[in-house]
Amino acid sequence: MIEFHPETAAGTITRFIRETLDKNGFKRAVIGVSGGIDSALVLALTVDAIGAENIHALMLPYRTSAPSSLIDARTICQNLSVIWSEIDISPMVDGYFAQVKAEVSPKQIGNFCARQRMAVLYDHSEKQNALVIGTSNKSEILIGYSTVFGDSAASMYPIGDLYKTQVFALAEILPIPSSIIKKAPSADLWQNQTDEADIGLSYAHLDELLDLMVDRRMTRAELIDRGFDQNEIDALKKRIRLSHFKRTMPSVCKISARSAGIDFRYPRDWGK
Amino acid sequence: MIEFHPETAAGTITRFIRETLDKNGFKRAVIGVSGGIDSALVLALTVDAIGAENIHALMLPYRTSAPSSLIDARTICQNLSVIWSEIDISPMVDGYFAQVKAEVSPKQIGNFCARQRMAVLYDHSEKQNALVIGTSNKSEILIGYSTVFGDSAASMYPIGDLYKTQVFALAEILPIPSSIIKKAPSADLWQNQTDEADIGLSYAHLDELLDLMVDRRMTRAELIDRGFDQNEIDALKKRIRLSHFKRTMPSVCKISARSAGIDFRYPRDWGK
Repeated sequence: MIEFHPETAAGTITRFIRETLDKNGFKRAVIGVSGGIDSALVLALTVDAIGAENIHALMLPYRTSAPSSLIDARTICQNLSVIWSEIDISPMVDGYFAQVKAEVSPKQIGNFCARQRMAVLYDHSEKQNALVIGTSNKSEILIGYSTVFGDSAASMYPIGDLYKTQVFALAEILPIPSSIIKKAPSADLWQNQTDEADIGLSYAHLDELLDLMVDRRMTRAELIDRGFDQNEIDALKKRIRLSHFKRTMPSVCKISARSAGIDFRYPRDWGK
Repeated sequence: MIEFHPETAAGTITRFIRETLDKNGFKRAVIGVSGGIDSALVLALTVDAIGAENIHALMLPYRTSAPSSLIDARTICQNLSVIWSEIDISPMVDGYFAQVKAEVSPKQIGNFCARQRMAVLYDHSEKQNALVIGTSNKSEILIGYSTVFGDSAASMYPIGDLYKTQVFALAEILPIPSSIIKKAPSADLWQNQTDEADIGLSYAHLDELLDLMVDRRMTRAELIDRGFDQNEIDALKKRIRLSHFKRTMPSVCKISARSAGIDFRYPRDWGK
């Protein structure tokens, strides 16, 4: 892994949060706090950036969410003196699936829950004149371990360039409760879910391979020389390619002289 | 307005839809049909591109949606032999706002409805192994007349480079019922809403000014020379700048050597 200095990263990220809010004309932030390490870390960094009084946290459990997640979420908000609201997304989720006649998978419910949380976060951000701050990390962004327009929907990703193992390293120097740091990472979309079982790799192994492939630009042959399994390399590369659509805006069919998203992208630098 | 050939545009767009589905490994499409002209046109173009049998249309009314919208949506689906489902989003929307203690504005409900529709479209796309095709047009994309992560959420925008006036011109050569073409454009987010009243300009006027500003790159001085009001020019430019965030991915705080969304963007061309 490329050398990582948690103190330097913390400083860069808090300046990024402040600057991104300021450039967009906002002073306040809305953050969904799940009880997991990513949102706990983003909350702590945002408190450092703009102060607890400018943040509204939201806990958005579904009826199958682990009660321990909610307890952890309350603890981190209490510790950081951040005001929070709790809204049960079960009526929205169940109100939809009651109308679906076909069989429903846990993954469908999980994705629908993630999109309900987005809708509630954005409703609060609108009322409070705040931006929604995202909690996605680099490991999940690269492999597409997220719900598109769900947890991936945000104004900014403060830890979007930190691998999960770096998230853990950064959490160590911030006031994050050890119960949050020690538990197995989980999207908590269904009971007993863990990220590492879903992904099929430990974060330590995944991050090492991603770092070599993406950041250090090693070829397949070089990775095999280093002892990595070729099927694992190919599967991971495929996963990165197939999740490309989650990292880009919708494709626009170009017809005119200057098209949004293609050659008209930077209105801040545009015209006089 | 730059010269516009509806027949050429129709051919380019149907090829774009086919190619975008194919490149992403999909054969089927899910489209939200509101009863308005944009979704009717996208539906007709998608039928030309991949055949009615590969499309599932969804009508997603809220309890305040105009009944005439649903009738128009059914008519276009019937005319094009596209199978559709109707799902009432009221339980989801009301299930949330019942938990909100503060006053709720029509705009909040409208945005929440748009995000519920997205969640239902994406749930169907997942079950059917299909892509969600967006119906945003260039006029609304440029001024940000949309709900971010709501109606703007899609895999592609087939008419995303057509101004609304061009949407009308293209609809004339496709089998779109005249009742859909003739009614005043409306997001139907609340009763008696019309786009032109919301925006404060007619589409004819808006599109003319956008075309000169964006496509023809005219300066403020040139536009004033042409007789446009300077306050109107400034207000429109501001609107384009302020809606920039709706046309871009979340900002990532750069920490590492190669960051998703910054310098790691094109995995299709990446590595061997």
